[in-house]
Amino acid sequence: MTDDFEQMWRDLAPLGRSATSGGYFRQPFTSVESELRAWFTEQCSARGLIVEADGNGNLVAWWNGVVPAQPQGDQASAGAERSGLPGVLTGSHLDSVLDGGAYDGPLGVVSSLAAVDLLRSRGVVPRRPVAIGAFAEEEGSRFGIACLGSRLASGSLSPEAAAELRDRDGVPLLDAMASAGLSPSPGRAAWLDRIGTFVELHVEQGRDLVDRDAPVGLAAGIWPHGRYRFDFTGDANHAGTTRMEDRHDPMLSYAATALAARSLAAASGQRATFGRLDVAPNGTNAIPSRVTAWLDARCDSEAELVRLVAEIRRQGEAQASSDGTALRVTDESVSDGVVFDPRLTQTLGSGLADRWGRLPVIPTMAGHDAGVLAAAGVPTAMMFVRNPTGVSHSPEELAETADCLAGVDALADAIEVLVS
Amino acid sequence: MTDDFEQMWRDLAPLGRSATSGGYFRQPFTSVESELRAWFTEQCSARGLIVEADGNGNLVAWWNGVVPAQPQGDQASAGAERSGLPGVLTGSHLDSVLDGGAYDGPLGVVSSLAAVDLLRSRGVVPRRPVAIGAFAEEEGSRFGIACLGSRLASGSLSPEAAAELRDRDGVPLLDAMASAGLSPSPGRAAWLDRIGTFVELHVEQGRDLVDRDAPVGLAAGIWPHGRYRFDFTGDANHAGTTRMEDRHDPMLSYAATALAARSLAAASGQRATFGRLDVAPNGTNAIPSRVTAWLDARCDSEAELVRLVAEIRRQGEAQASSDGTALRVTDESVSDGVVFDPRLTQTLGSGLADRWGRLPVIPTMAGHDAGVLAAAGVPTAMMFVRNPTGVSHSPEELAETADCLAGVDALADAIEVLVS
Repeated sequence: MTDDFEQMWRDLAPLGRSATSGGYFRQPFTSVESELRAWFTEQCSARGLIVEADGNGNLVAWWNGVVPAQPQGDQASAGAERSGLPGVLTGSHLDSVLDGGAYDGPLGVVSSLAAVDLLRSRGVVPRRPVAIGAFAEEEGSRFGIACLGSRLASGSLSPEAAAELRDRDGVPLLDAMASAGLSPSPGRAAWLDRIGTFVELHVEQGRDLVDRDAPVGLAAGIWPHGRYRFDFTGDANHAGTTRMEDRHDPMLSYAATALAARSLAAASGQRATFGRLDVAPNGTNAIPSRVTAWLDARCDSEAELVRLVAEIRRQGEAQASSDGTALRVTDESVSDGVVFDPRLTQTLGSGLADRWGRLPVIPTMAGHDAGVLAAAGVPTAMMFVRNPTGVSHSPEELAETADCLAGVDALADAIEVLVS
Repeated sequence: MTDDFEQMWRDLAPLGRSATSGGYFRQPFTSVESELRAWFTEQCSARGLIVEADGNGNLVAWWNGVVPAQPQGDQASAGAERSGLPGVLTGSHLDSVLDGGAYDGPLGVVSSLAAVDLLRSRGVVPRRPVAIGAFAEEEGSRFGIACLGSRLASGSLSPEAAAELRDRDGVPLLDAMASAGLSPSPGRAAWLDRIGTFVELHVEQGRDLVDRDAPVGLAAGIWPHGRYRFDFTGDANHAGTTRMEDRHDPMLSYAATALAARSLAAASGQRATFGRLDVAPNGTNAIPSRVTAWLDARCDSEAELVRLVAEIRRQGEAQASSDGTALRVTDESVSDGVVFDPRLTQTLGSGLADRWGRLPVIPTMAGHDAGVLAAAGVPTAMMFVRNPTGVSHSPEELAETADCLAGVDALADAIEVLVS
C-alpha cells in the first residue's frame, strides 16, 4: 500500500503548483483541475471503480453497487452487486484555495483510494455499496460559494442560483463547466439517494491532535460560518490635491472595519478575517472610489455568528458615516453549525477502539462537504489526520507520511465497520 | 476657434471611456493610447505642424523652427525658420489615471492646438520656434513612475532604470512601447536642447481659482511628493481554524498603517494616500501571506515629506512588530519640490495683466511634466484652468467650456508674450 500511496502523491505533486511560492492553484473548471479530474478517473479505472459524473461537477466512483446514471467504464467489471442497501460514501475534494497546501482535499481522496486497496488486500467483501467522491469547488475560490458541488448535489443551492454565479473575470459557472468539457446540469444528484453514510477524511486545520498526541481523530461538528461582501463606496479624487479633511475615502472606512473585526472576534473567542479585497480604480495617485472586502466569520454558535457580523457591520457603518462614505453588506453564503451524527461517530469510535484506543473527538471551524451533506440529512462523520503545525490554506500545510498512512488504515477500518 | 475646439473634444470623448463609470482608461502604449497618439498626429498634420517622436514615447510638434531628427511630414510646408533662438514648448499629456477624468492632460494638449490656431488668426508670426508636446505616461498608471516620458527625455531617469520597468502583468516597458508600434530608445531627448521655455496648461486639481473667482491662474510651484511601496508579509493560514491570537496577518498591519497615515497627514496639513493594493493570495478563507500597498505622500517641504514618510513607516513597523508580521518599504519615485521660474512667471503675469488683470499665483500638490522639466533646468511656468468642484483623477473631473476657452486665450497670450 505504501508504494501506491506515495506514487499517488508523486503524481499529484506538480499539478497546479506555483514555482515561486510552492503553493497550489487548483481552481475548479480550469485546465489544472481537468488534469486532477483525469487523474482521479484513471486511478478509479485502474481499480475497476465505476465513475459517475453528476451535472454539478462532482465525481462519484463506485467500488460496487448499482450505478444507473450513465456509468463510465464497464459496470460488470466492477463486480457490482445489487444489494439494495444504502451505500457508504467517502472521499473529499481536489480543488485548493489560491496558493493553498497539498493536503486540504487531496488527502481525503488519496486516502480513500488507498483504503479501498487496503480493504481488498484484507479480503473484505463489502455488504453494501462503497463509493469515493471528489467534490467540485469545495473552497469556493473561484465562484465564491464554498462546497458548491455538494450544495448543488444536495439541493441546498438551487440551479437558478448556480446559473447566476460568475467568477472574478465575469465567467458564468455554467460556461466555465462547459469549457472544461463537462455537461453542466446543476441540481439534486441521483447518487444522493444511493448513499446512507458519508465519512470524509481531512487534514486537521489546527493542532488539537498535536496536543492530544494522536495521529487520527473524529470530528464533533463544524462551527457556523459565513462569507459576507462589504462594499465601501466613496469619492474618487486626486491623491495629492485633495485635503485630508475633504476626502470621502472608502479605504480608510475599510481599514477601520478590518481592525474592528479583529478586536470583536478576539474578544469573544470567535474568528473574523478579511483576506480578499478588490479596490477601484486601484491607482497610486487616486483616492479609491470603492473598496470591496470579503469577511469570513466563524463562531461557536449561530447566535454568536449573527451577533458578531452585526457588530462588525454596525462599526463599519458608523465609520463610513464618519468618513462620508457608504457601506453595503451582502451575505454571500452562510452555513449553520453542524453536529455530526452522534450515533455514527459513536459506532466508529467503538468499532475502531480495539486498534486505535479512544479516538479524540474534536470540533472544527472549517467548512467541509461533510457539513453540507450532514445538513442535507445524510448521517455523516469526519476523520482528521494530525497536522504538526496546524497551518492550512497555505503552502506550509503539512501532514507526516506516517500519520497519513495511519489515516488510510483508520479510514479502511471505518469503512469495514460500516459495510460489515 | 470655438467650433474647432469643441470638435477636438468630441473626437476625444469616446476614446478609452468606461461605459460603466464614465471614466477614462488611457494607459500608455495600449491600443487606446495609440488612437490618442494618432489623433494628435492628425491634428498636428492638419495644422502643418511637424511631429517629432523621441525614443521615450513623447511627441513634440513644431509650428516652426528646425527639426533635425527625422521629421514626419513636409518640413518646408511648416514654414520653418532657422532663427537659432531657443523655442517655446507648450502642451501636456494624453494618458489618464485608471478611471480618470477627461481634462487632466488632454486640456493642455487641446488648448495648445487651439492656441496655435488663435495666434495664427491674430496674424502672429513667432520670432522663435513654438512646439506642442504630448508626454508619455505622465500619470505613472501603468509603469508606476509618474512623468515617465519627461523624466527620460530630461535625463532624470536613466535608460537602464527604464529597461527594468514592468507593468502589473510583468510586461517590460520597452516591449510595451514596441508593441504599440514605437521604436523605443530611451534617453535624453534631442528636442530638449532646442527649447528655452516650457508653459504647461492644466485643469486645476483643487478649488483655489473657485475661491479667487478667476477662470485662469499661474502656478507658484509643486509640492515635493513621492510613491513608496509598503510590503507587509505574514503567514498565510486558514481563516476559520486559526485563532485570532495565533495569527500573523499582514492585512491588519496594513489597515493600522493606513489609518496612521491619515492621522499623521491630517495633523500636519500634508497628504498621504493608500489608493492601490495587491493582496496575496487574496482568497476569502485564507489569512493573507502578503499585502502590498502603495503610499502616495505630498508635503509643503522636502523636510516635511521625509518626516511624514518616516513616521508612517515607523508606525507601520511598530504595528508589524506587534502583529508578528514584517514591513519593508521601497521608495519607487520621489520628486523634490519645484518652484517655477519666478522671472518667467513674473513676465507672464505682467504680459497678461492688460487683458487678465492680476492672475492668481497658486501652489499645487500634483506632479506634472512641468515640474520635471523645471527640475532639469528649463525655465518653466504652469497655467491652471478653474475646476468648479476641485475633483480630479475621477470621472467627476470638470471644467466649464467658458473657462476652457479663457484658458486657450490666456495660453495664446502667454505664447505671444514669449515669442514676440
